[in-house]
Amino acid sequence: MSIAEPLPPPVETVRFRDAQIEMAHGAGGKASRRLVEGLFAPLFGSLGTPLTDAATVAVAGTDVVITTDAFVVRPLQFRGGSIGTLAVHGTVNDLVVSGASPCALVATFVLEAGLPGDVLEREARAMADAARRSGISIVGGDTKVVEHGKADGMYITTTGLGAPDRRVRCAAASVRPGDQVILSGPIGDHGITVLLARGDVDLDAELQSDTRSVGPLVASLVEEAAHGLRWMRDPTRGGVATALNELARDSGLGVALFEERVPVRDAVRGACELLGLDVLHIANEGQFLAVVAPADAERALDAIRAVPGGEGAAVIGEIRDTPARTVIGFSPFGGSRVIEMLVGDPLPRIC
Amino acid sequence: MSIAEPLPPPVETVRFRDAQIEMAHGAGGKASRRLVEGLFAPLFGSLGTPLTDAATVAVAGTDVVITTDAFVVRPLQFRGGSIGTLAVHGTVNDLVVSGASPCALVATFVLEAGLPGDVLEREARAMADAARRSGISIVGGDTKVVEHGKADGMYITTTGLGAPDRRVRCAAASVRPGDQVILSGPIGDHGITVLLARGDVDLDAELQSDTRSVGPLVASLVEEAAHGLRWMRDPTRGGVATALNELARDSGLGVALFEERVPVRDAVRGACELLGLDVLHIANEGQFLAVVAPADAERALDAIRAVPGGEGAAVIGEIRDTPARTVIGFSPFGGSRVIEMLVGDPLPRIC
Repeated sequence: MSIAEPLPPPVETVRFRDAQIEMAHGAGGKASRRLVEGLFAPLFGSLGTPLTDAATVAVAGTDVVITTDAFVVRPLQFRGGSIGTLAVHGTVNDLVVSGASPCALVATFVLEAGLPGDVLEREARAMADAARRSGISIVGGDTKVVEHGKADGMYITTTGLGAPDRRVRCAAASVRPGDQVILSGPIGDHGITVLLARGDVDLDAELQSDTRSVGPLVASLVEEAAHGLRWMRDPTRGGVATALNELARDSGLGVALFEERVPVRDAVRGACELLGLDVLHIANEGQFLAVVAPADAERALDAIRAVPGGEGAAVIGEIRDTPARTVIGFSPFGGSRVIEMLVGDPLPRIC
Repeated sequence: MSIAEPLPPPVETVRFRDAQIEMAHGAGGKASRRLVEGLFAPLFGSLGTPLTDAATVAVAGTDVVITTDAFVVRPLQFRGGSIGTLAVHGTVNDLVVSGASPCALVATFVLEAGLPGDVLEREARAMADAARRSGISIVGGDTKVVEHGKADGMYITTTGLGAPDRRVRCAAASVRPGDQVILSGPIGDHGITVLLARGDVDLDAELQSDTRSVGPLVASLVEEAAHGLRWMRDPTRGGVATALNELARDSGLGVALFEERVPVRDAVRGACELLGLDVLHIANEGQFLAVVAPADAERALDAIRAVPGGEGAAVIGEIRDTPARTVIGFSPFGGSRVIEMLVGDPLPRIC
């Protein structure tokens, strides 16, 4: 992935004029985008470069991929994972979907005074395990402590370094009409699991977070179909709907989403219906989306399905000329709807 | 700087068994060290490598220096700086004293819901300005939002990437008896300024934080005396006393500190006397310590003094064989005392 690829100009110029920060500014949807495009990007001089999950930086003449994420998930632990596993997998996945091989990770901890020592040890151990399984080394860090009542136990920031895989040339600008959209597996597991872990909803479901490294799935895809691979993204905050809207916007093209092909577990579907949530907006922590040239789509899909954990992969959509910069969902009964980027924050602090 | 340099074995094995996290675990002194050496280092597999301000990682065959820090300073703004300037300068300085040229920086923000938009804009602008002055690009980031009442406005984590300067070969293991200890300028300004900004102490002093990049000072030092340069560190949390104790411990040697030579402004000295604080434990954000071979010490000092902002540099101490792993302070009247690493946290959340 390169940040130097030419991109279509943004449709409109965004200004950040919000009087105050709301939860939605951290939810990964429209408000987050307004903050990044309207405030950070112009000030930090990165206006005009695409907002991807990772940046490529030349260090002593070598391209290095870097990505960073803060984690504030509440509660700290939930079925299938915890803040520590998310903090490692989230950053590893941002490297992987940027076409980079993970090399090293650093972490900062903001700890709340009074946090039990064994909770910290548990999370440090979870990070060490996740890093080992993901093939990345944790090489440094920093710890600060804030007063009791702040920081909900702990917040973690991880930053990952990777080496670009020269076989991968992903960019929204290289996506073409007819390209196929592949999703690696069932969606919504992470968001609904965290929601249930909070105990605010009287629902019991056999669910667990999908937090994992998508490295093995992407490695197989790249091995078999790098030539046709045009774009990747992990649909975390804001879900599949937000990721595909970013693709539509950044490519200047349309995305047709065949909704019945999107893999969703019954328990997730049921919870979403009950709570009035659109599963396409729910966060995932162990899935990725890939856009592949039509000629390579079947081989790409087979490559992902061949890896344990990739059996549920599916082609869920197609790139179209029109309507430009829009995601349209098609139902099996002939209906269609515009699928919007996430607005507001129905499930705050999901990662 | 290389993390592969052989080091003397640690004197004792530290175990982290603290029942709960206290403010002191984030203060940079003994409790912080217990946390890092007793918990993180063994779990993350970095046991035996020195705990320096930055790590060196091979990415695609090229050595890259990476460092990360969380910033939770309270209040967000104070004379001479703010959380945004600290977040950039702190990370730039960690790269610089590790012998690296700063290349790029990424940042995460944990924002409190209800934070005024213009406060965020002010800090983003402060970061952009500090980055420009320090010659580093801000290339990426992430934002999360937590509920009102958490996060004190904002916490920031920055991670910096640098390219190693091949002329610099710093390591505690290469320090030798007779080497001279240079300090770049007056100490305590930052810590006392932040303390006064809190308004808890009825004291008015013409002070401001020393937050700045030490890059130009170090560049001049390296240009003139790289050959004799053996160790550098920026004495932030825990102050000069903690940094020198780490040097004594990591080198296995003693440090003689000539206390009257340590530059301290009258206002800082007065505040410390009034509050019962040892200025050697007060945090600095724009100073560094360097250990230089005796033959190069004068040239090194002149090089620092020749740069605007380096006029106050001084030789403040000397490396000695004994007492090993100990810092001894000598007064002009012939007295001496053991100078300990910071214990507890007299000034919490200073950076």
